[in-house]
Amino acid sequence: MKVGGLSSASGVSVATLKYYLREGLLHAGVATAVNQADYDDSHVRRVRLIRALLDLANLSLADIGRVLAAVDDEAVSVHDAFGIAQDAMVPARDRSSPAYAQAIADVAVFVRRHRLRVRPDAGVRWMLADALVALREANWDLDLTVFDERMPDALARAAVELSLVPPVDRVEQMEASVIGTIGLEVAVSALRRMALEHASWQRFGGARGRRPSAGRGTA
Amino acid sequence: MKVGGLSSASGVSVATLKYYLREGLLHAGVATAVNQADYDDSHVRRVRLIRALLDLANLSLADIGRVLAAVDDEAVSVHDAFGIAQDAMVPARDRSSPAYAQAIADVAVFVRRHRLRVRPDAGVRWMLADALVALREANWDLDLTVFDERMPDALARAAVELSLVPPVDRVEQMEASVIGTIGLEVAVSALRRMALEHASWQRFGGARGRRPSAGRGTA
Repeated sequence: MKVGGLSSASGVSVATLKYYLREGLLHAGVATAVNQADYDDSHVRRVRLIRALLDLANLSLADIGRVLAAVDDEAVSVHDAFGIAQDAMVPARDRSSPAYAQAIADVAVFVRRHRLRVRPDAGVRWMLADALVALREANWDLDLTVFDERMPDALARAAVELSLVPPVDRVEQMEASVIGTIGLEVAVSALRRMALEHASWQRFGGARGRRPSAGRGTA
Repeated sequence: MKVGGLSSASGVSVATLKYYLREGLLHAGVATAVNQADYDDSHVRRVRLIRALLDLANLSLADIGRVLAAVDDEAVSVHDAFGIAQDAMVPARDRSSPAYAQAIADVAVFVRRHRLRVRPDAGVRWMLADALVALREANWDLDLTVFDERMPDALARAAVELSLVPPVDRVEQMEASVIGTIGLEVAVSALRRMALEHASWQRFGGARGRRPSAGRGTA
């Protein structure tokens, strides 16, 4: 397909596609004439992945570039590429405070307690520590033991989720892993927020000050 | 405290604090002299909330302004303010595609099935629809029934979480609700990503190509 067809198939404007091409986020099509190239399904998939990382994960173009480099680098194993892509999904930030050092130590204890195969320098450790620091500064003195009972379920679900990744070629497998990680994360977060809105209605009452009867809606 | 003290207490530079003051995100201190003002704990809490919304939720300053307006508007109930704050945490985006219309209809069916008290125009519906669209475009044909069994647990957890919000004054209660929503969401997402890294190690093998023995680490 021409660039116009890629635009229709992906829902992204031609100008934006040309920008992705210039920035190296999107691989070039097969040149068919001066200033004309043919694009295929691999381009459609890649544009959708870029949009998901931009819109759902709020990543910068630089971070997206790192995720895509991991997806495309055939020299590293799928497992290592998955780790690199996960790390790129955790934004850089100043993490030098003493409160942060305490949080990262607490995360290490949690990882050991659950015997998680999470790399010592995995970005996801920082992500959990970021949340701990923010909550503690706001006087939610969160202890990670509150999550202990959830982890067996979370591990079982993660194994099922990865088993759903189609056993196609390496790039498609990586693309599906990344988009599944982000997409399901946003879905799960949305479900949690819906539950919070429902609980707020139960606790604080509806818009007109009506108080719900006890327990209604949770049966 | 002076602005320097607020900077130490919040870990945010004086220049950035002045920017928040100019943008109206942070309320003015009590003027004590020309170009000098006194700040208190309410300022420290507000700066931490702004940082959490910037760093953890990746919100724009405009969206943060909308969250803070809901926190501060005493004319609306706590429940309504919670809804407004939640809506501001869902970024604006073009949602005009037919795939999106299908997703939003699927979300409505899910909300009705679980009798959730989620407003018809709640931003969290768009958030879940965004995730559905991205996953479906990537050929993860997600059906929301896969989340049915999780919702009773999610509702019970949300009720517990809101019961932890300290029964202090309205603004502190709202600030704690917002930071709890975001902070716990990031924590839960991080735990899910850790589970995925662990599952990836089990499925695709470790860095040196070692294959784990079946089921190891999940006991």
